[in-house]
Amino acid sequence: MILQLDPGAGAQELAAIEQVLGQHGFRPTEVRTQAGRYLVAIGDREIDLRRVGHLAGVRDVHRVSDAYKLVSRKWKVGATRVDLGDGVEVAEGSLALMAGPCSIEDETLARGTAEFLQRQNVRIMRGGAFKPRTSPYSFRGTGLEGLKMFHRVAREHGLKVISEVLEISQIAEMYDYVDIYQLGTRNSQNFSLLNELGKVDKPVLIKRGMSGTIEELLQSAEYVFSSGNEKLMLCERGIRTFERASRNTLDLNAVPILKEKSHLPVVVDPSHGIGLRRFVPAMALASIMAGADGLLLEIHSDPERAASDGSQTLDFSEAERLFREARATLNLRENK
Amino acid sequence: MILQLDPGAGAQELAAIEQVLGQHGFRPTEVRTQAGRYLVAIGDREIDLRRVGHLAGVRDVHRVSDAYKLVSRKWKVGATRVDLGDGVEVAEGSLALMAGPCSIEDETLARGTAEFLQRQNVRIMRGGAFKPRTSPYSFRGTGLEGLKMFHRVAREHGLKVISEVLEISQIAEMYDYVDIYQLGTRNSQNFSLLNELGKVDKPVLIKRGMSGTIEELLQSAEYVFSSGNEKLMLCERGIRTFERASRNTLDLNAVPILKEKSHLPVVVDPSHGIGLRRFVPAMALASIMAGADGLLLEIHSDPERAASDGSQTLDFSEAERLFREARATLNLRENK
Amino acid sequence: MILQLDPGAGAQELAAIEQVLGQHGFRPTEVRTQAGRYLVAIGDREIDLRRVGHLAGVRDVHRVSDAYKLVSRKWKVGATRVDLGDGVEVAEGSLALMAGPCSIEDETLARGTAEFLQRQNVRIMRGGAFKPRTSPYSFRGTGLEGLKMFHRVAREHGLKVISEVLEISQIAEMYDYVDIYQLGTRNSQNFSLLNELGKVDKPVLIKRGMSGTIEELLQSAEYVFSSGNEKLMLCERGIRTFERASRNTLDLNAVPILKEKSHLPVVVDPSHGIGLRRFVPAMALASIMAGADGLLLEIHSDPERAASDGSQTLDFSEAERLFREARATLNLRENK
Amino acid sequence: MILQLDPGAGAQELAAIEQVLGQHGFRPTEVRTQAGRYLVAIGDREIDLRRVGHLAGVRDVHRVSDAYKLVSRKWKVGATRVDLGDGVEVAEGSLALMAGPCSIEDETLARGTAEFLQRQNVRIMRGGAFKPRTSPYSFRGTGLEGLKMFHRVAREHGLKVISEVLEISQIAEMYDYVDIYQLGTRNSQNFSLLNELGKVDKPVLIKRGMSGTIEELLQSAEYVFSSGNEKLMLCERGIRTFERASRNTLDLNAVPILKEKSHLPVVVDPSHGIGLRRFVPAMALASIMAGADGLLLEIHSDPERAASDGSQTLDFSEAERLFREARATLNLRENK
Repeated sequence: MILQLDPGAGAQELAAIEQVLGQHGFRPTEVRTQAGRYLVAIGDREIDLRRVGHLAGVRDVHRVSDAYKLVSRKWKVGATRVDLGDGVEVAEGSLALMAGPCSIEDETLARGTAEFLQRQNVRIMRGGAFKPRTSPYSFRGTGLEGLKMFHRVAREHGLKVISEVLEISQIAEMYDYVDIYQLGTRNSQNFSLLNELGKVDKPVLIKRGMSGTIEELLQSAEYVFSSGNEKLMLCERGIRTFERASRNTLDLNAVPILKEKSHLPVVVDPSHGIGLRRFVPAMALASIMAGADGLLLEIHSDPERAASDGSQTLDFSEAERLFREARATLNLRENK
Repeated sequence: MILQLDPGAGAQELAAIEQVLGQHGFRPTEVRTQAGRYLVAIGDREIDLRRVGHLAGVRDVHRVSDAYKLVSRKWKVGATRVDLGDGVEVAEGSLALMAGPCSIEDETLARGTAEFLQRQNVRIMRGGAFKPRTSPYSFRGTGLEGLKMFHRVAREHGLKVISEVLEISQIAEMYDYVDIYQLGTRNSQNFSLLNELGKVDKPVLIKRGMSGTIEELLQSAEYVFSSGNEKLMLCERGIRTFERASRNTLDLNAVPILKEKSHLPVVVDPSHGIGLRRFVPAMALASIMAGADGLLLEIHSDPERAASDGSQTLDFSEAERLFREARATLNLRENK
Repeated sequence: MILQLDPGAGAQELAAIEQVLGQHGFRPTEVRTQAGRYLVAIGDREIDLRRVGHLAGVRDVHRVSDAYKLVSRKWKVGATRVDLGDGVEVAEGSLALMAGPCSIEDETLARGTAEFLQRQNVRIMRGGAFKPRTSPYSFRGTGLEGLKMFHRVAREHGLKVISEVLEISQIAEMYDYVDIYQLGTRNSQNFSLLNELGKVDKPVLIKRGMSGTIEELLQSAEYVFSSGNEKLMLCERGIRTFERASRNTLDLNAVPILKEKSHLPVVVDPSHGIGLRRFVPAMALASIMAGADGLLLEIHSDPERAASDGSQTLDFSEAERLFREARATLNLRENK
Repeated sequence: MILQLDPGAGAQELAAIEQVLGQHGFRPTEVRTQAGRYLVAIGDREIDLRRVGHLAGVRDVHRVSDAYKLVSRKWKVGATRVDLGDGVEVAEGSLALMAGPCSIEDETLARGTAEFLQRQNVRIMRGGAFKPRTSPYSFRGTGLEGLKMFHRVAREHGLKVISEVLEISQIAEMYDYVDIYQLGTRNSQNFSLLNELGKVDKPVLIKRGMSGTIEELLQSAEYVFSSGNEKLMLCERGIRTFERASRNTLDLNAVPILKEKSHLPVVVDPSHGIGLRRFVPAMALASIMAGADGLLLEIHSDPERAASDGSQTLDFSEAERLFREARATLNLRENK
């Protein structure tokens, strides 16, 4: 059960509400986000919503039977629009394109990519400064200095930046240089990091764990929301299965299911989802018809020389074609 | 290595070819299909193709490094078109729609479905007469009598019939009443049945095993082809993973991968692929953008009363809308 | 719900019972096995068992909530002992050892294996005559002639034979030459074949599908039982997962779970379960401590020259050591 | 390639070694652990080991083709023994028993558990202070205060403590109150945390990711080792598969495979591995025969009232019986 509270509800009113909830066997957690104030009440019993709906300080009450609560569409029917400023947003009914290299490498690459994206009217540039690598001996990214440069170049071209955060201490370090924090697949259940991302006032894109269920992804989002941050996006990026012909198994079923279960935008990463460059465009377009609100794409001016993930990265001419086709596909979807 | 043989190559020529192959460490299997004559030669060594290419009786030689051979696109670059007669075909560049109830139930349902499909200009009707059921106590289908009725009704409406075959003895029984034999997911590696389906001159649609790899699906198709039948279609219908929010995980990655690896048409079954009626249309349209050559759909005049699989079955008005959108999506894909 | 019937119950009594069941919303299936007579009644409603228990012709009534019924331990608490004659059995509390080559190759191998097993007091010899192979160009076994020879050699050494059946027509062909029909992992849901195996009076060992759940394995066994054959064994042989360091993932959890859910004996095949020869003994011993009633092992006088599966096959000296350790481990388990 | 360096090798010698490596296309990483000094050299080319083996400062050179290096058994053939002091160790050839509640709850439980373990001569007590929970509204543990109490009680009974660490800041906080840091399954690829655990001089037990491969587990251990900590243990705790009859699929294949690939001890957690209390003992004994060097078990004086994981937790009388049987099984294994 979710109770939306009056912003001005006082301690006394809160105590009275919690007492009534306790009498009915519910355990309340108070949640204050940047956008609102809630009581999430967990309990097994049935309760007549009117018993709490009329209490002072309560604005609205919703029954939410899902294990996740605040990210559920059962209480917030309208889709969440994540506003990045300057007319850039991630929102239902449109298609947010995010593209760039897997790793931030050097300024030449950053500048080339930014110019290309600006020309293509793609407004969000991706690039990893801190790279999670299976082997400790692999290139682990350019770090904060690379991110600062990347952000500067992005701003010169009117672009927003999305970049992956790996640990709590990086949240503050990266703050001035990202517009969206990306939480990677290996940290999808790093609850400490999720918690801290709830305390920051910038959007977070949460990637599904490579063996995470749809429900677990929503629970991870619930962590961020319940510790204060409503600016969330979910991202399907392929799951681990027995199949080896593709790097991962892109689970496009997850798109309409997530859109129904949650009010949060759903982004698809077809680059990791199939892991094979020549098939990324087909899977990107399929994602749109499945209902995606955004795409996260790896592109590079020279994929064969990319510092990481080159084999799933589009070059600029492939990307240009895909952007055009993606917009036509969105147009078909929205006007069908 | 695949050697295409002259139709008139004699025993002596064949012996000479096999001798040369043997000298180079290759083990040949002669394959006679309804359409051609081949030698499939298995071996680990490198060989100069000219050494066999000039031999009498050899029309062409192709190096095929895949484990599967005759279904590989490495020797047959042009896509296979499966012709069902009367202008109905399953072929690259178009979209074959196949729809109907999970189980053939009665003539009223068959007639209603056939009339609807005819009106929609959908030319292939699906319906199961022999149903593979997890429990021996479940409804196992109407059997051959149901199929006869179903086929008669289909013909009255100018429709082709696709229906699942469960065992060798049914191949002959069903012969006069189907246009496509469907091999189900649980029989995807029933090699005895695959072998026998190679001896019949009607098309076969092979569903991927629920835990079958893409490579295994191609090997299963190789069984049918190498025992004589080239009229084959592959079908992605969802794989088994840890996810439980959907019935199966529709692996749309498989579509472009299969299209590249093989010259055979690729059909997608989104009904089983997601298993949730309200999301079937989105996944059907996504399948088209992923490159599907056909769709296999469960529809029913009254899904809630369907004898099986009702929860993933579209009603006629949902189907009508989907057919329209599917054609618009195909149009976009082919003209992008 | 399972009703055990009097062997002599007549048509009239049966009709009366079925009428009462129908009135309570139950759908009955009559089952006649070689050992007994049952009515399996499927329904959602609660019923007072006494309402049917006192009817003429009913010997006993059991409530069984599982999807599978006759193979459930809920009605038959005592473990099923599968008697192969001559003092050989597969039964709880003991350890049935079954060993031999993956493929029957020639008489020298058969004779060498049989002599070795006789010396080791291992009473059941395995060997495949019909081999299911992923590729149509692989060796498919020696066929029936090989099996006849294998059976003759086995009998000369006092051994029983287990061999895989791939299709319905082979059931009759193999009948005189096997003591246990083995149903392979790829046919675990070949319901037609399961059905026919229910009509034969020889034991059947059903392997779990490589992506089959424990529940599906029990349902497959239910097919055989409900079509008449109670002489059944279940076999865990490894499932398909994302792990690639082993051929399959041996799911030893399945052993105690199957033993609890069903009265049927549980055999483990560690050869396929891990697929790596040097680790087969450790997994065999682990299987015993997990509760296995039998082991199915691939052994060969010269594993490196085996016609198939050599890399998971023990040689005779490894096998001899394993048999000794297996017996010591069983002794520990039974006296702990 | 791994070069073991002389402890006293100077900068000049190191530079000379690195130059030679560079000339042969190898990229070196210097590793200083608490126990030794190494150069890990990554490269694709073949090299004559003598070319580097004779250089000043090099003690020994080993070719290691695995993706992981320092944790590989290819260079360190002898098994690593993790010494916890006071005669407690985790080492090949023995069986380290670790048991206790899932969550540290209160002093009564801690004291009862410690007394029981002391009586049983089990020397390592487990208990979680910081609990990773799927839902943000679940009990997240007693935190540091609970751990302090738990450690004090353990010491009073001569016990060592193992407890899970969730984030970098907890490493220092927990330092005085744990003997083994446990890295949980959800953090198995939290590379930042792994890195920091390499800088501490206390043992670390790394749990396999719930969808992590054996190779990935070894790479995670490589992170800790290469940042300085050689006191490592690997833990198999079940992987995520399609099966739902058990909580996880305990992959006992991983035990002999890990033992062969790595010199590190291998511990099994059968409590999470099957997730069903009544089957935990069977799986524990199976783990021993598979080759486990230790067991991690959830026990509680009153499992049904445990704050978490009660359904997979043994009570004291079950645990007592299991400890006895485990020792008998170890005895059989070591003397077979």
